[in-house]
Amino acid sequence: MPFKPTEYLPYDFANRRHIGPSPEEMDEMLKVVGADSLNALIDETVPKAIRQDKPLDFGKPKSERELLHSMRETSSKNKVLVSLIGQGYHGTVTPPAIQRNILENPAWYTSYTPYQPEISQGRLEALLNFQTMVSDLTGLEIANASLLDEATACAEAMTMAQRVSKSKAKAFFVDRDCHPQNIAVIKTRAEPLGIEVIVGNPDKMDASQVFGAIFQYPGTYGHVRDFSEQIAALHEQNGIGVVSADPLSLTLLKEPGAMGADIAVGSTQRFGVPMGYGGPHAAYMACRESMKRAMPGRIVGVSVDSHGNRAYRLALQTREQHIRREKATSNVCTAQALLAVMASMYAVFHGPKGLKAIAQRIHRKTVRLARGLEENGFKVDPKSFFDTITVDVGPLQAAVMKSAVDEGINLRRVGETRVGITIDEATRPESVEGVWRAFGIERKDDDFDPEYRVPEAMLRKSEYLTHPIFHMNRAETEMMRYMRRLADRDLALDRAMIPLGSCTMKLNSAAEMMPISWREFADLHPYCPDNQALGYKELIDDLNAKLCEITGYDAISMQPNSGAQGEYAGLLTIAAYHRSNGEGHRNVCLIPMSAHGTNPASAQMVGWKVVVVKSGATGDIDIEDFRAKAEQHSENLAGCMITYPSTHGVFEENVRDVCQIVHDHGGQVYIDGANLNAMVGLARPGDVGGDVSHLNLHKTFCIPHGGGGPGMGPIGVKAHLAEHLPGHPATGGAEGPVSAAPFGSPSILPISWAYIQMMGGAGLTQATRVAILNANYIAKRLEGAYDVLYKGSQGRVAHECIIDTRPFADRVHVTVDDIAKRLIDNGFHAPTMSWPVAGTLMVEPTESETKAELDRFCDAMLAIRDEIRDIEDGKIDGENNPLKNAPHTMEDLVKEWDRPYSREQACFPPGAFRVDKYWPPVNRVDNVYGDRHLVCTCPPMEEYAEAAE
Amino acid sequence: MPFKPTEYLPYDFANRRHIGPSPEEMDEMLKVVGADSLNALIDETVPKAIRQDKPLDFGKPKSERELLHSMRETSSKNKVLVSLIGQGYHGTVTPPAIQRNILENPAWYTSYTPYQPEISQGRLEALLNFQTMVSDLTGLEIANASLLDEATACAEAMTMAQRVSKSKAKAFFVDRDCHPQNIAVIKTRAEPLGIEVIVGNPDKMDASQVFGAIFQYPGTYGHVRDFSEQIAALHEQNGIGVVSADPLSLTLLKEPGAMGADIAVGSTQRFGVPMGYGGPHAAYMACRESMKRAMPGRIVGVSVDSHGNRAYRLALQTREQHIRREKATSNVCTAQALLAVMASMYAVFHGPKGLKAIAQRIHRKTVRLARGLEENGFKVDPKSFFDTITVDVGPLQAAVMKSAVDEGINLRRVGETRVGITIDEATRPESVEGVWRAFGIERKDDDFDPEYRVPEAMLRKSEYLTHPIFHMNRAETEMMRYMRRLADRDLALDRAMIPLGSCTMKLNSAAEMMPISWREFADLHPYCPDNQALGYKELIDDLNAKLCEITGYDAISMQPNSGAQGEYAGLLTIAAYHRSNGEGHRNVCLIPMSAHGTNPASAQMVGWKVVVVKSGATGDIDIEDFRAKAEQHSENLAGCMITYPSTHGVFEENVRDVCQIVHDHGGQVYIDGANLNAMVGLARPGDVGGDVSHLNLHKTFCIPHGGGGPGMGPIGVKAHLAEHLPGHPATGGAEGPVSAAPFGSPSILPISWAYIQMMGGAGLTQATRVAILNANYIAKRLEGAYDVLYKGSQGRVAHECIIDTRPFADRVHVTVDDIAKRLIDNGFHAPTMSWPVAGTLMVEPTESETKAELDRFCDAMLAIRDEIRDIEDGKIDGENNPLKNAPHTMEDLVKEWDRPYSREQACFPPGAFRVDKYWPPVNRVDNVYGDRHLVCTCPPMEEYAEAAE
Repeated sequence: MPFKPTEYLPYDFANRRHIGPSPEEMDEMLKVVGADSLNALIDETVPKAIRQDKPLDFGKPKSERELLHSMRETSSKNKVLVSLIGQGYHGTVTPPAIQRNILENPAWYTSYTPYQPEISQGRLEALLNFQTMVSDLTGLEIANASLLDEATACAEAMTMAQRVSKSKAKAFFVDRDCHPQNIAVIKTRAEPLGIEVIVGNPDKMDASQVFGAIFQYPGTYGHVRDFSEQIAALHEQNGIGVVSADPLSLTLLKEPGAMGADIAVGSTQRFGVPMGYGGPHAAYMACRESMKRAMPGRIVGVSVDSHGNRAYRLALQTREQHIRREKATSNVCTAQALLAVMASMYAVFHGPKGLKAIAQRIHRKTVRLARGLEENGFKVDPKSFFDTITVDVGPLQAAVMKSAVDEGINLRRVGETRVGITIDEATRPESVEGVWRAFGIERKDDDFDPEYRVPEAMLRKSEYLTHPIFHMNRAETEMMRYMRRLADRDLALDRAMIPLGSCTMKLNSAAEMMPISWREFADLHPYCPDNQALGYKELIDDLNAKLCEITGYDAISMQPNSGAQGEYAGLLTIAAYHRSNGEGHRNVCLIPMSAHGTNPASAQMVGWKVVVVKSGATGDIDIEDFRAKAEQHSENLAGCMITYPSTHGVFEENVRDVCQIVHDHGGQVYIDGANLNAMVGLARPGDVGGDVSHLNLHKTFCIPHGGGGPGMGPIGVKAHLAEHLPGHPATGGAEGPVSAAPFGSPSILPISWAYIQMMGGAGLTQATRVAILNANYIAKRLEGAYDVLYKGSQGRVAHECIIDTRPFADRVHVTVDDIAKRLIDNGFHAPTMSWPVAGTLMVEPTESETKAELDRFCDAMLAIRDEIRDIEDGKIDGENNPLKNAPHTMEDLVKEWDRPYSREQACFPPGAFRVDKYWPPVNRVDNVYGDRHLVCTCPPMEEYAEAAE
Repeated sequence: MPFKPTEYLPYDFANRRHIGPSPEEMDEMLKVVGADSLNALIDETVPKAIRQDKPLDFGKPKSERELLHSMRETSSKNKVLVSLIGQGYHGTVTPPAIQRNILENPAWYTSYTPYQPEISQGRLEALLNFQTMVSDLTGLEIANASLLDEATACAEAMTMAQRVSKSKAKAFFVDRDCHPQNIAVIKTRAEPLGIEVIVGNPDKMDASQVFGAIFQYPGTYGHVRDFSEQIAALHEQNGIGVVSADPLSLTLLKEPGAMGADIAVGSTQRFGVPMGYGGPHAAYMACRESMKRAMPGRIVGVSVDSHGNRAYRLALQTREQHIRREKATSNVCTAQALLAVMASMYAVFHGPKGLKAIAQRIHRKTVRLARGLEENGFKVDPKSFFDTITVDVGPLQAAVMKSAVDEGINLRRVGETRVGITIDEATRPESVEGVWRAFGIERKDDDFDPEYRVPEAMLRKSEYLTHPIFHMNRAETEMMRYMRRLADRDLALDRAMIPLGSCTMKLNSAAEMMPISWREFADLHPYCPDNQALGYKELIDDLNAKLCEITGYDAISMQPNSGAQGEYAGLLTIAAYHRSNGEGHRNVCLIPMSAHGTNPASAQMVGWKVVVVKSGATGDIDIEDFRAKAEQHSENLAGCMITYPSTHGVFEENVRDVCQIVHDHGGQVYIDGANLNAMVGLARPGDVGGDVSHLNLHKTFCIPHGGGGPGMGPIGVKAHLAEHLPGHPATGGAEGPVSAAPFGSPSILPISWAYIQMMGGAGLTQATRVAILNANYIAKRLEGAYDVLYKGSQGRVAHECIIDTRPFADRVHVTVDDIAKRLIDNGFHAPTMSWPVAGTLMVEPTESETKAELDRFCDAMLAIRDEIRDIEDGKIDGENNPLKNAPHTMEDLVKEWDRPYSREQACFPPGAFRVDKYWPPVNRVDNVYGDRHLVCTCPPMEEYAEAAE
């Protein structure tokens, strides 16, 4: 009989797995939306003028299995040697329970930044543990919840030092023993800010010349020095002392706080986070109490909820760039939350005794290594070290390095004649013996008489990690349950839609996530020889090519490891271009009022002046104002920063005109890629006039949010800018680096690459189309109940929509906060609040949400509208009602119930699951109380007990 | 300065990670227990007479990292070729989301068998989906929730056929086209039961000679035959027709029900469960409605809870062996729950369309393969096939097979001249081309005209998987949330202690679990050439040696894939031994009253007579009765089956005497290994007199329970029995096999091997000691409140203790059920109920629980005792009280509260977590209702809606 195949592709990732609505659901949704077809809807939404002319085509999309198969082939081209290179990156042992229950658990990796504290108590506790750990180890009072990498943390420390210093000096001193990438990133950051960087020997520092100084501890070549004198000298001149310290060494060595340091920074990578060819890992920053309001990045603090119970939340939010905008001096936005959680759990797992034992083992092993070399006539430098030594081998440097590689070991090339060796937690005796063999020594790593190579004066005297959380029972059973309990307190994508405008919380599929655990991706040192990283090269080259195709740009830099970092790198690139044309004076940047707060902050960081352009009534850029300002600043116009589609969720029809105006005045156009999820396959920023864009791989390209990082913000540029992209000491290039590692956070790039390969060109385009459909479906269903701000010329929104809740605040004092917190009762994470317009909610459903989930959300929003109406109608009290009392907890149910509405209405409003109800662990969190009584480390256990009472 | 190392081993798995109480906690616990030291406690508990003379020593224990490192080396010795061998094992594509969220998620793999339905609604739903899937695909009304493997399912079908058949015949017909392992296991099972097995051509079957027959569908060599006529003939003779069917083929082919089959069995391995060198996977069994009470294994059914809401639970529990004991005709106890859940999720993922499309792709590919061969002059057999063909290559068989291996492909050797090829879901075009090349054909796997090689009459006409659950939205986001919701409904080890007497719910560590996902362990076919499985050989050989050392036995068989299977295999071994001595008449087995119910059932299965021996007042074996019965049956004494320490949780001092008596009368001693967790390192069953024991690797050796399987029950024997261990067609041996695969379920053996290597001899011994300490601590803390039955001569219990709750039932009608259900409110899975003594609770905390968790449990038990006392004292009502109304749900809180106790008391009794409270999704489940109104497939959606109202 003739064959009649079923019209169904069971392995179709693009259409079955990644995209939420089924074809049937889409038909129903189109009816609601009132569009004849998906094509018709897109035509009404995305202006013809900007549409790309040919469809995206990456060949046949891969199934999950084929993807993993080919990814194995790529990964096998990476050679995993033992890297004893050090320089800020170390082998480490990730406890399997942490790998399984955090890194590989969607409850942790799909969560959003904890801006809504009521649904984030679990990760906030883990991050508070991180801060406590950092604060204890560094001996400084306040720590933040992580920064992007050690090098950027150094640069942030420099600018922070400038902010808090009372010195009039314009120079910053940098210890020549800082890791080269730290020095390089500091220099990049200093240049546009007009800071002079003096690299030198700390013993010869002239404190009167500088507003601050940074010292590496231990030094990049292993020295363990006490910087107390230098810091005292700085203080005498109103200068600020910064120490960049390896946190593991601080379990043995005198802490920066004890040296008088004002700020400490460093990397927590070796706390159980694989090297990943450079990242992601969590950097840290700690400072004195008095400087806390100057510290960049997120800080978790302790506050209380509306019932007076203890609750965690992000503190001092007013410091953040999205509020300070062009007054900001840092554009730090993303942290490395997931990696900070891992590092903090590593500390909880091992406790102070365990960490100290690990540090001692490392030191003991390094001493044995040194003794073995010394006993065979090699001169080991320095005399006093923690885990790093160098050996002068004269003309034999290359031979020894090569010989080590033959043993499966990478060593560090230091100068022309020296070889550096850094021991880590994961170094096996076989590797120590292999190093010896590379030096021509045959011996066994037997025990020597144990000895310290640290002078007694440099040993740490103070206690650390004294909080009970670091002394809990260390049985895996207990640890596993602790991680589960924390995860269960939070609401992440694995339980409900997170409809965050501009944040694109889409599916992070299991297949995309799997390769990042493979050792071929996880265990490479960023400075290993190129021929050991051919798999990464293949991945990065191909991903670059595909991203160029998607965006219409000609070159990509993978270096920026966050979106904001991408903005900054993009502006640096433009600035370098102007300089190369002899137009280094161009320093004015036009930015529309509606821009994301990082835009002006980034412009600020490259030393530009921000000129704000008005928005029209429709939310669009006011083209006349734009033109006028471009003309006014024509002479000095560096460029503009726009977001497309706009932060108002609209495809502005005049975008080409805007770009043309800038180009006409000699400027360059930066198009913010935050909303690229609405463009892929339909339009290309490079085609509509952009010269540079950053791409949020953690939004559009499926890298999970991880509770607030990791992110990746590579930038695409037109050909004329390619030569001005960030360089790096390890890979060359004319410009300085913006990140510690040449390719930012490469170990998460397999996620985006996998996504693109499994979607194919048509699948990516379909994702965009469905993202637009989903947003328009929500806009339509909420019509009448809520006003949707800012639609396109044909009444459509792009991939997100702004819901106006200001009328309720005016009429019945129901605020956007009340609605957001009430949505928790309905089982949802709130949409983005009060951005880009105060008093509104911006909803972005993404293409990954099903019709059922969209309906659940719309039902919830409509029910909330009914509750507001009941207040308007005087049916329920204006102050004692489900909105004002939201969110409701399980505790509310247990207590006496004296409210004018029922328990049922309180806890099971439309949208809330019945059996699978999500319960927030706390009632509404009091932010003001928390900022007034700032506590940023774990409170004592007695307080836990009190809070529980 | 001299070096003072911290006395702390950060990577100490044995003492820090696996064992619950910290050293400090143990000191406190010993004080409570009233023992001077752990050694002293052990001396008081474990009789000197049975202690082993030298300590266990396996060298230095490995850290997690070293373990994974060496496991990688071992696994790399397995060569993963493409296996097109078929014969019941197929390449398959495990959806990554299922791998991550089920197989690798402790919420699923650490759960216990769903005997407590209120805390098991999630996995019960998944298993009900499995039953619905099996019932639909086979076209039979009732399906169970999985069996061990296809071969044992065939054997179970045979004995079930005998039970339900009204035929007087004593023979069973077996299609010669059944898979060889199915035929072999059927023969093993038939022999001791006196069933004659007739293997032959179905066309020549004489239905009058047999009580039933089994047919393979499609046949092992690929034939697709309609067995309707044969089954009709059987029915005319009151015989039973069994079809062993590949469920994937049933998406295209006429289903067994449509052929009139009474029973269908098969394997669901190819529904997303890797081959794993033979297992574990879930076999299935389905039958007509009328036979349901004769069906072995667990059946999930639908019932209601005390509020009339729908609730799932295990149905027809009275059929189980632990009730029927020596009247049982099957000893099936473990299922393959975790694997059944995976298979059911695979069906939910793909739905009927997807499964059909997969089957069609496979068939189309097989047709292309055949066409390619035919067009080059090869004769392909059969004409009509689904996925399997054979080719007669005459004397070139070896050459073609070898040539295929060179292409990276395993084919099947069939007879002396034929080669078998089976295509599967995972077969890539490259492999089809590789097969052609092995036959000397160079061509591309381009499209041929599609055609079916199945006659139209054999195509399936009926619908399947029509239930909405198989038509839910297939987006990964939705699937991930579904899996999470189900997991959250259940209480597993990742949230709380599961203090199950005799079931040893200990830590299943992440490091132990990781290797089973590696393709080198997961993707081997059980019948691949030996030289491709050298890693498995190394693992199994070394694990065998270590288990011999632990148990005092001389040889191990890894074949039994459950504890009960181990018992059965052990008794078969004894029977074979007697036969070899010319004493085949020995057929009496002494079994103490206190034995686990599987013991008499297993004895029954080898055709032995069970003679029950009394227990004394202390719960010990009544030695005089034992001696008397041994003497009485001396002539025919085959052996005895005892459990040590006893099922009463006591180390009986006279165990050596008991063994001696049996040996004196020519019998062999079977020591049930269920309680080995109380012996490892302290005493060896092989030393105290045992000739055979089975070891529950899923209890003592860390294989997780998986919600009711997988298990592994290898047997250890003394040297004189070694030659009588189970053989296998694939590996040889004098005796028949008991399982489908030579080594049972090898892919989970890395777990036990990892455990032993990370613990080392001292660590394993310490685990035993702490297990005993933990049990004695609970016994002591509950003293006064509850009577602890059965202590040793010095007042100690072994690793578990029995709490007598009968007095409360007598006095105030508080039953063991009431206490068990109330414990759910306290946040615990109940201990083992009413076993081994009706009306009691048996508690086994294991060594992995911390003091804090033990205290939480004791606090809960003491609070329950207070509640009972309040009833006794008349302070609270005897019927309307927290015990009778337990468990309490969230719904109870929301509703009007008219109870004489508070919501607080109901839902937050001592032990219950406050923020992290576990809520059962249903109130107490009504078992009687469920058995009276038996529904074993997913109820229609309307009923879901009704139940929700």
